Amino acid sequence: MTERIPPAIDAGLLSPVTVGYDELTADTRFAACLIAAEIGLARAWAEVGIAPLDAVDALEAAITGIPSGAAPGSESLTGASGSVDAGLELDLSRLIEDATAGGNPVIPLVGILRASVPEVARPWVHRGATSQDILDTALMLFAGDAATVLLARLDALDDALTEFAEAHRDEVAAARTLTQHAVPTTVGLRAANWTRGVRRAADRLADTVEQLPAQLGGAGGTLASFAEIGGADAAASLPAAYAELLGLAAPEAPWHTQRWPVTELGDALAQTVDALGKIAADVATLSRTELGELAEGAAGGSSAMPQKRNPAGSVLIRSAAIRAPHLAATLHTAAALSVDERPDGAWHAEWPTLRELLRLALGVAGNAGGLIDALTVDGEAVRENLALTGGLIVSERVNIELAPLLGAARVQELIAAAGAGEDLAALVRAEPGLEGIDPERLLDPARYTGLAGRLVDELAADPEPRTEENR
Amino acid sequence: MTERIPPAIDAGLLSPVTVGYDELTADTRFAACLIAAEIGLARAWAEVGIAPLDAVDALEAAITGIPSGAAPGSESLTGASGSVDAGLELDLSRLIEDATAGGNPVIPLVGILRASVPEVARPWVHRGATSQDILDTALMLFAGDAATVLLARLDALDDALTEFAEAHRDEVAAARTLTQHAVPTTVGLRAANWTRGVRRAADRLADTVEQLPAQLGGAGGTLASFAEIGGADAAASLPAAYAELLGLAAPEAPWHTQRWPVTELGDALAQTVDALGKIAADVATLSRTELGELAEGAAGGSSAMPQKRNPAGSVLIRSAAIRAPHLAATLHTAAALSVDERPDGAWHAEWPTLRELLRLALGVAGNAGGLIDALTVDGEAVRENLALTGGLIVSERVNIELAPLLGAARVQELIAAAGAGEDLAALVRAEPGLEGIDPERLLDPARYTGLAGRLVDELAADPEPRTEENR
Amino acid sequence: MTERIPPAIDAGLLSPVTVGYDELTADTRFAACLIAAEIGLARAWAEVGIAPLDAVDALEAAITGIPSGAAPGSESLTGASGSVDAGLELDLSRLIEDATAGGNPVIPLVGILRASVPEVARPWVHRGATSQDILDTALMLFAGDAATVLLARLDALDDALTEFAEAHRDEVAAARTLTQHAVPTTVGLRAANWTRGVRRAADRLADTVEQLPAQLGGAGGTLASFAEIGGADAAASLPAAYAELLGLAAPEAPWHTQRWPVTELGDALAQTVDALGKIAADVATLSRTELGELAEGAAGGSSAMPQKRNPAGSVLIRSAAIRAPHLAATLHTAAALSVDERPDGAWHAEWPTLRELLRLALGVAGNAGGLIDALTVDGEAVRENLALTGGLIVSERVNIELAPLLGAARVQELIAAAGAGEDLAALVRAEPGLEGIDPERLLDPARYTGLAGRLVDELAADPEPRTEENR
Amino acid sequence: MTERIPPAIDAGLLSPVTVGYDELTADTRFAACLIAAEIGLARAWAEVGIAPLDAVDALEAAITGIPSGAAPGSESLTGASGSVDAGLELDLSRLIEDATAGGNPVIPLVGILRASVPEVARPWVHRGATSQDILDTALMLFAGDAATVLLARLDALDDALTEFAEAHRDEVAAARTLTQHAVPTTVGLRAANWTRGVRRAADRLADTVEQLPAQLGGAGGTLASFAEIGGADAAASLPAAYAELLGLAAPEAPWHTQRWPVTELGDALAQTVDALGKIAADVATLSRTELGELAEGAAGGSSAMPQKRNPAGSVLIRSAAIRAPHLAATLHTAAALSVDERPDGAWHAEWPTLRELLRLALGVAGNAGGLIDALTVDGEAVRENLALTGGLIVSERVNIELAPLLGAARVQELIAAAGAGEDLAALVRAEPGLEGIDPERLLDPARYTGLAGRLVDELAADPEPRTEENR
Repeated sequence: MTERIPPAIDAGLLSPVTVGYDELTADTRFAACLIAAEIGLARAWAEVGIAPLDAVDALEAAITGIPSGAAPGSESLTGASGSVDAGLELDLSRLIEDATAGGNPVIPLVGILRASVPEVARPWVHRGATSQDILDTALMLFAGDAATVLLARLDALDDALTEFAEAHRDEVAAARTLTQHAVPTTVGLRAANWTRGVRRAADRLADTVEQLPAQLGGAGGTLASFAEIGGADAAASLPAAYAELLGLAAPEAPWHTQRWPVTELGDALAQTVDALGKIAADVATLSRTELGELAEGAAGGSSAMPQKRNPAGSVLIRSAAIRAPHLAATLHTAAALSVDERPDGAWHAEWPTLRELLRLALGVAGNAGGLIDALTVDGEAVRENLALTGGLIVSERVNIELAPLLGAARVQELIAAAGAGEDLAALVRAEPGLEGIDPERLLDPARYTGLAGRLVDELAADPEPRTEENR
Repeated sequence: MTERIPPAIDAGLLSPVTVGYDELTADTRFAACLIAAEIGLARAWAEVGIAPLDAVDALEAAITGIPSGAAPGSESLTGASGSVDAGLELDLSRLIEDATAGGNPVIPLVGILRASVPEVARPWVHRGATSQDILDTALMLFAGDAATVLLARLDALDDALTEFAEAHRDEVAAARTLTQHAVPTTVGLRAANWTRGVRRAADRLADTVEQLPAQLGGAGGTLASFAEIGGADAAASLPAAYAELLGLAAPEAPWHTQRWPVTELGDALAQTVDALGKIAADVATLSRTELGELAEGAAGGSSAMPQKRNPAGSVLIRSAAIRAPHLAATLHTAAALSVDERPDGAWHAEWPTLRELLRLALGVAGNAGGLIDALTVDGEAVRENLALTGGLIVSERVNIELAPLLGAARVQELIAAAGAGEDLAALVRAEPGLEGIDPERLLDPARYTGLAGRLVDELAADPEPRTEENR
Repeated sequence: MTERIPPAIDAGLLSPVTVGYDELTADTRFAACLIAAEIGLARAWAEVGIAPLDAVDALEAAITGIPSGAAPGSESLTGASGSVDAGLELDLSRLIEDATAGGNPVIPLVGILRASVPEVARPWVHRGATSQDILDTALMLFAGDAATVLLARLDALDDALTEFAEAHRDEVAAARTLTQHAVPTTVGLRAANWTRGVRRAADRLADTVEQLPAQLGGAGGTLASFAEIGGADAAASLPAAYAELLGLAAPEAPWHTQRWPVTELGDALAQTVDALGKIAADVATLSRTELGELAEGAAGGSSAMPQKRNPAGSVLIRSAAIRAPHLAATLHTAAALSVDERPDGAWHAEWPTLRELLRLALGVAGNAGGLIDALTVDGEAVRENLALTGGLIVSERVNIELAPLLGAARVQELIAAAGAGEDLAALVRAEPGLEGIDPERLLDPARYTGLAGRLVDELAADPEPRTEENR
Repeated sequence: MTERIPPAIDAGLLSPVTVGYDELTADTRFAACLIAAEIGLARAWAEVGIAPLDAVDALEAAITGIPSGAAPGSESLTGASGSVDAGLELDLSRLIEDATAGGNPVIPLVGILRASVPEVARPWVHRGATSQDILDTALMLFAGDAATVLLARLDALDDALTEFAEAHRDEVAAARTLTQHAVPTTVGLRAANWTRGVRRAADRLADTVEQLPAQLGGAGGTLASFAEIGGADAAASLPAAYAELLGLAAPEAPWHTQRWPVTELGDALAQTVDALGKIAADVATLSRTELGELAEGAAGGSSAMPQKRNPAGSVLIRSAAIRAPHLAATLHTAAALSVDERPDGAWHAEWPTLRELLRLALGVAGNAGGLIDALTVDGEAVRENLALTGGLIVSERVNIELAPLLGAARVQELIAAAGAGEDLAALVRAEPGLEGIDPERLLDPARYTGLAGRLVDELAADPEPRTEENR
């Protein structure tokens, strides 16, 4: 397929977050998925013994430009890394125009395909199908391809995060709750928590992607046209054959009216962006001039204001984190309000929304990868911040340890005095009845990190290969 | 627990959809979950060998009013069907007031509990915990209880829908796409599709509920306080013991900063409401005066306008379907923008939102159950509608059958003539070259329902007991 | 400006609703707005007497390619109808790439502009400004241009709708509530209500557009850089001069941290889509095969299913109506969570969201215009539907008229009998004590349309020129 | 009205933000609004000369318990401060139950009212009205009352903020962009910006509240029932009379199908929460342990962790800021998807959503008031933070001042050296060619605050009484 116009650059100037991934979500890619779905259908007809293999080979050869017999599987058309190769000259801008007139792009595409294939193949173009069969299936292919790339990025991010967590396993830092220093934690545990969020999201996404079903139901979801053409048994076998050829899950039943494949995918993408948004929120906060514990390696600078180390990656991820929940909700609104055997608007609302959500998730996963790879920890800032409240960051520990010896009331007095500015170590040292207590050890934040190290180790030890068995 | 004020009636006049389920989501119920979490923590300390059993028994007895030794499991406090029984007089309205001052209800509750238990038990109240440990855990108990009731309702609805689908397995009706008659389907297949949507949502919800984790991390998520009190090994065992006592999943790690347990639950609830919203959209549409294929048994009447049979159940479900996606999205926004070891607002946004979502899902599941139980099909209206377009509802079939005999162009002419008002059967009968064709059979919608019956049978045959093995 | 790549086709295959308006919201257009903002700033410096006029003329000439002295106002750069004409070769794809690296497109653009102007003009490029000054201002120009086109379309739609309402002023039809026939209304009143919704939205949008402010605050919103360069008084005059040159409202103060200009615009756009969504919901419903009261002139057909007259325009509008509320909400989330003197993500989330909302509103306004222009009423279907319930559609009237004569109980009996199938006119005729009542008149729906005609007339009479005085 | 059950405490334990304002949004209050609407309708019938005054007096007396002749206006029933006083015993819990059965509370309420008034008044109860007339009107009364209280709170907050801004007019502080120190600003200007956001929101809300219309259209929006009862002219006068009696705006036309009164109110409430959310975001950030510039007077403490000064007020406001956009969007979804003369779900979705939004806005306005009244500035922390980057916070100024003297390249070198740790003042002092420059003055942040003081003064000088003329 030689497009006459370049791939759409979808948002460019106004959504910098997504550039670089547009290729996966561009109109050309979606057109390739539509075509793959059409070829897959013809081939499925052959698979169930109804279409002559010659006709289907001729159909595919004419569309893909690859001599029949050597016709590739759908992978070459939709595979994320494969180049789109076609014998067909597709005028994408005209296809878009015609799609607008007809309400969806399948109708004009079928016309183009019919005109492009030899006589023998013509009856098998779009045979028995309705537009929604092709469009929904193409959407699943499109989403599946993008999600596969996304999963690879999330796995790489998981590795990078795990490594980061291990590298900073014992770097003690202030844990903050409601913006205030609470107790000590470690840089490593914070990163381990980030990792767990990413891992959970990736697992759920992988689960969802595995279950993305092909769609094949005909005009009303009864498969009547397929049964009319090939008989009931062939029609009953067709969806699974079609799905397998395209690398999708076999549908239990047509899902034209039940949109969980779309909403479950949207939810998983939102969860992915949530997990990355949490990382970005922490990185942006810990990069603040006053905190300075983290810095993005490629921090955005300003020649006029060299003191600035803008956490530019986090900023873009956070902008996506603000947007993604609303996009996922749009898919639910569409699903919840759909009516009839094909709804009058809800279906159409899914397409641009799911694409934008895919783009955002791909974009921020890329951003997050770059961010973590180059993220630096300023150990001195970490230590200085940790010391900001004197020993008060371990006041919880002081209470636990000393209350049995001094009574809770007296411990409160000591802590209150420290809160008012006195030196807590000196107070402890001076207190009668604490002879066995070493104030330095008691007040050492590094001795009050609980299971932080263990939690990092468990994360790192958890092999979690994403396979059938252990998911 | 004898509350001095009656259970809150949460929305009453302004959200009629939810009444009847408020009990499960009322403040008293949530207070019971908070108390169960506190008792569970004390008992977990005993379980891991740190707290003396006597002290914990005394604690529980004082709070529940049940003599120590006979102290019940958490079920009696949180079980959906069990009555809340307590030795403690809890002034709920004051607790609410104090919760507002402090930002969450755990702080004042702990004060009340400490004042209510004997000296020996006092140290084990809230031992080592932070407010979030108790509140998050209570939220999971609260949600789990409500979701259990919801699942039972969805299962009953699945049965009712399946029965409805089987009863109308062969009742041929018009399938509509983009508001227009397309091809025939059956009343049974439409209901089978509804059922599949409900079943999928229920499976996902059940999956999610099984994984709802207890929360135990201490002030910063390191479990340092627990380790300080009981040693690292006891602290490491504590979360699983705590979870098991409460019937929750053992957490892989503290999830104070990773909010997937909340968003996954929200997503599953939204998916549930989506599935019910789809049913309601169809019922409301098919109940229209002009369509009249369905009628709610308890259709709202109007003495002034007796012609009205308002689909009141569908209307309330649809109102929930409009609201639920926005509520689920709120949970994602909170998750995506959370920061630090406890965020400054995002955490608090989850509570009322998750509760409202639970209430909506419970309310509409109840409504849907009632709706389906009493839903009637007007067979005559179904048949009349099906006949509205003459034989054109099977024009797709005519095309498939006759094109090979007459050529596509001629078939288009015949269909166009029928579209313009001529009798399609007569046209077919008059057409040369169609001698073997019986127009009555060709144009009989009942002979063009494809796999509709089979799809109903598969649904009904699918036992789908929700067990570990087959999910 | 000769772009080396064609304008982005923003959503194409996956969002057919918006094609045809992309030009107004394309990256090239936004780039032109950025450039206009930069030229405007230089000119404002001249206006307040600080920049030499020669330098500014040279700057503009170099950028626009128009000889100095003949330099146009900003209109030619941003005016919706004017062509973008520039002396500058702008490599848009590289600008987009650099924007991603830096987080916003202003930084690389300034570099390009500085390199493009003569020495004398160079200091006046971006003089004193921060990226946000230019980007926010450009966003207002961009939105204002698009909204101006949108308002013209809404005004045309108002005219078409008013004409439609007048043409069908007395065409009696069934009013439906909760899907059921209630009482009579008119086709004209229904359209008048649509018009009022559109008019209200347009008025609010016009109000909002008039108030779109320029942004000028410098790096921290203090205008310190401008004061340093030109003195406090010049700095104080600069924003108003800048705004006036660009045709924007003078800001009361920098609004970098207060995002009402963005959210108010988003709200007005959502309200616009709401109003059009309501029209589409009614048209789609009244186009149903069973209702058939309305048909879109350009109804999407299907050669295989000639009975279908898909309300394709309504379907696309409804898909936008599902999406727009979520987009407008995204802008509020960004505003509500913004922090500091420039937030770390919330600002960036506004750009693509506002653009998409503009595109949707423009797209559906175009669709709605075409829809109404070609919308046809099937008078026979309207009358048949109206008669569907016998006289029961005026049962409310029967009650009002006969209750004083027969008592409410007896009237209920009569109506109930009619509800059960008896002929209401015959019942009335047979009833003793109703001698003066003419059943035909009593039961004539055309005599029970209340103020429907008057409400249409008031709408049509209302001149409502959108001027300062009468708004 | 003596309710037999106490007012609902709507969210209590799970939404601490709203307690204290529940009274204004409780079911009892809404019931009072419903009753006021019914009384208003009867009185409007008298006003237009159709209902006998005696009958209406008797009706009102029976319902309110106030002797006829002394019957109060609607104020006493709905006035925010007035106590609800009624002769009628209203069983609210039963009303709620019956509302659920019928889908809305008006139907059972009318039954109760009819049973409560003397024979002579009975025909004038709910005369000619449909449920929606009463419910929509009551919703506007309910919202108007709550919004009036809200506006008073916003005005008080405006005063407090303005005072705060003036008090800190010249307190120089670091402005932060993308989390990094940028240039100096003042504490006062930051607060002035907050104030402008609140003021804009309040103005818009006031505008909206003034335009909240009564609803009167009858079953299909034609006012046919009113015309049938009182003639067309009386029917035409009725809505304005009704509106005036209730203190609402006269509707241009029935708005049963055009829901801008609901969405515009929702948008204004969301904008209000946005403005308060921005304040809370800044306060929470500036209260961070490391920043410490602000502290909430009633900062939530922790006896175990005395170092914590939780910004509890900000946290609750931020939780509302996360929720409100989604609630406002729900109203748009309902408006955009409404159909027919009364939609099958969209209408019902508005009620609980609008109430929750009112409660959130009222709650956070109260919180914000308390927060600002007690907000303290730690001047030392402000100064220390300002000095954190050495003189680099004025590097923009250094560039502006020195580039003409040294050339831009040399200035960049100096600033870069300072960025690398050298003392900027010393560098400037040592630089040849800068003899006239006083490094202390040049690098003094207080001399680089631009128009900050002026912007505060303008805010304070702006009297902005909210009157017709100057809005």
